[in-house]
Amino acid sequence: MVDPGSNPNQPTTVGPSDSRAAMDQAIEMLRGNQRFLLTGHMRPDGDCIGAQAALCRVLESLGKEVWILNPDPPEAQFDYLSRACRFGAFKPGGGAESIPVHDVCVMLDGSELSRTGALEEPLRNAASKKMIIDHHIHHGDAWWDAAYVDVSASATGLLVGRVAKELGVELDRVAALGVYTSIVTDTGWFKYSNTDAETLGMASELVEAGVKPHEVYQSIYQRNGKDQPVGIGRVLSTLEYHADGRLAVVSSPPPTEGQAALADGDEVLDILRSVESVEVVLFLRGMAQGGSKLSARSKADYNVNALARRFGGGGHAKASGATLEDSLDAAKAKLVEAVLADFAAEGGAASSGAQLGRGSGVPS
Amino acid sequence: MVDPGSNPNQPTTVGPSDSRAAMDQAIEMLRGNQRFLLTGHMRPDGDCIGAQAALCRVLESLGKEVWILNPDPPEAQFDYLSRACRFGAFKPGGGAESIPVHDVCVMLDGSELSRTGALEEPLRNAASKKMIIDHHIHHGDAWWDAAYVDVSASATGLLVGRVAKELGVELDRVAALGVYTSIVTDTGWFKYSNTDAETLGMASELVEAGVKPHEVYQSIYQRNGKDQPVGIGRVLSTLEYHADGRLAVVSSPPPTEGQAALADGDEVLDILRSVESVEVVLFLRGMAQGGSKLSARSKADYNVNALARRFGGGGHAKASGATLEDSLDAAKAKLVEAVLADFAAEGGAASSGAQLGRGSGVPS
Repeated sequence: MVDPGSNPNQPTTVGPSDSRAAMDQAIEMLRGNQRFLLTGHMRPDGDCIGAQAALCRVLESLGKEVWILNPDPPEAQFDYLSRACRFGAFKPGGGAESIPVHDVCVMLDGSELSRTGALEEPLRNAASKKMIIDHHIHHGDAWWDAAYVDVSASATGLLVGRVAKELGVELDRVAALGVYTSIVTDTGWFKYSNTDAETLGMASELVEAGVKPHEVYQSIYQRNGKDQPVGIGRVLSTLEYHADGRLAVVSSPPPTEGQAALADGDEVLDILRSVESVEVVLFLRGMAQGGSKLSARSKADYNVNALARRFGGGGHAKASGATLEDSLDAAKAKLVEAVLADFAAEGGAASSGAQLGRGSGVPS
Repeated sequence: MVDPGSNPNQPTTVGPSDSRAAMDQAIEMLRGNQRFLLTGHMRPDGDCIGAQAALCRVLESLGKEVWILNPDPPEAQFDYLSRACRFGAFKPGGGAESIPVHDVCVMLDGSELSRTGALEEPLRNAASKKMIIDHHIHHGDAWWDAAYVDVSASATGLLVGRVAKELGVELDRVAALGVYTSIVTDTGWFKYSNTDAETLGMASELVEAGVKPHEVYQSIYQRNGKDQPVGIGRVLSTLEYHADGRLAVVSSPPPTEGQAALADGDEVLDILRSVESVEVVLFLRGMAQGGSKLSARSKADYNVNALARRFGGGGHAKASGATLEDSLDAAKAKLVEAVLADFAAEGGAASSGAQLGRGSGVPS
């Protein structure tokens, strides 16, 4: 997938940006400039805004001027960060003057400028130097002047933690909360396979710096409305298993006036993943305007990104989504058929692969 | 509460056992002896068996003979440990010879000998020296020769981690898995307020030693049967709120032939705790033989241990249980009345206390 916003005049190969030289270049650019604009992707998630909050505080402690400007505001569950840092949300049409004059623009938790939405053009036109700090694989050409990228890092916030060490800045409580937010949201609260020794070691230092894990947990994950439990129950009551329980499918009809849609499907997906036999979970939601929305999760080797892409969506190998024009029932039939066909195509080799996938849950 | 099994001839005060001297005495006893029997409480949990597995490997690496003998076997979700270590389950009536001759008996994750069930008498009668390694408050008299207790530690396994360092033993992969199991089960996978910097730092070292967090997660928490999701949904459909959503109550009728009881209520309790307004959760289950069983959880300052004790049960301030002779409906009515009366008795002061409890979820 080529970034549609990439500049064809830039070099078409992206050099290694996790090298010592790349880090040094980024550190030099951070040290040697005064006015910074931090930006990120549309609907910024916990890693994005956590990394921004941390870098903002680190640069401010060095006496620099910093603005954070994203295409969208942070979600309410991160209000403990937005109370401590000003997260600007860009309003298109506000004119060029709505972007503060800055020396360096740093994009965090993403490397495709098109993902900054309405900010893309103003940022591209700004006379500032450009930098990225990220842990995703980049698609497209390089458009930046400096890049610190490590795709093996569990979170962009972890990279900001490293940067702070390089800069010799001790994280204050807000910066520590930022990095902690990045880490816990991108590791599924230390559950995913990207949870490595560095991640836990950094988390330990952050708690030393004043982070209270159970308070962060409560802020991010215990903010549900009163309707949520019954909504979860209603979705679970639609459960169908296929392929001896390897595939679990649930659905919810389009929201009606009397019944609110489930605010967040993660809890349903988690419950279904906790069933030992389940390898793939599909959650289909009918939409008020017609069509349906898929959330797909994989616990084993099955790649739900490949599945979602066939239906016009995408994401990661273990978590993807798509929006389909089909009605709920038609979409469900198509998707179940597709997964069952994939299971069948895996044949003998993949059926043992699936066993391996399950088996890999047992430490060895 | 006095330990009914405590020896009245022993001193009635329990001295500080988290001191440097207590640790030194324990280390000396571990170093200076050859044959060890490790024991724990009835229905040993993850912390108990994790700490035992770790101490077993540590002592074996010093060339010592070690047996693990508990009143009950470990649960299936910990089979990755029971495949690596032999967890004996004591069968009463097997005669004194069924307990191996040993020099030191170490009780882990508990300090009341009565909690070893049928093992209590044989252990008391054994000519061995006695030691405890624990992180709970002790009730009753001291019956041991050495004690290493730190009630501020998140898990007993963490104390074994410290002991290993004192002994100069590097944890192998199985010992690391043991300590990791202790930590994650007793901190609710790093979510509870006992998750401190030492806990996360130790976890980091354990991952360095070969633990794969996501594999441990899958082993412990993703072993549910296929009926579990629908069972969860069924319980959630009974949800009632009281006191403006501060109290959430769910129930499930006695199991019938066609419908299995929910294997584990933790997921239901977690979902209800994730509702922002909820401070107290009551889950009542009717029992096949009559009567009902309470699981109570608190998210704020409300002490569910005090509640459960009024109904003949107990536990911790945030998680307790009780078994009542009343029918499901009668038990529910009594318990709701009790909690509402407590809320009312809290009055103005406590209503602001409850606010504080909620507020404390937001890092400050």
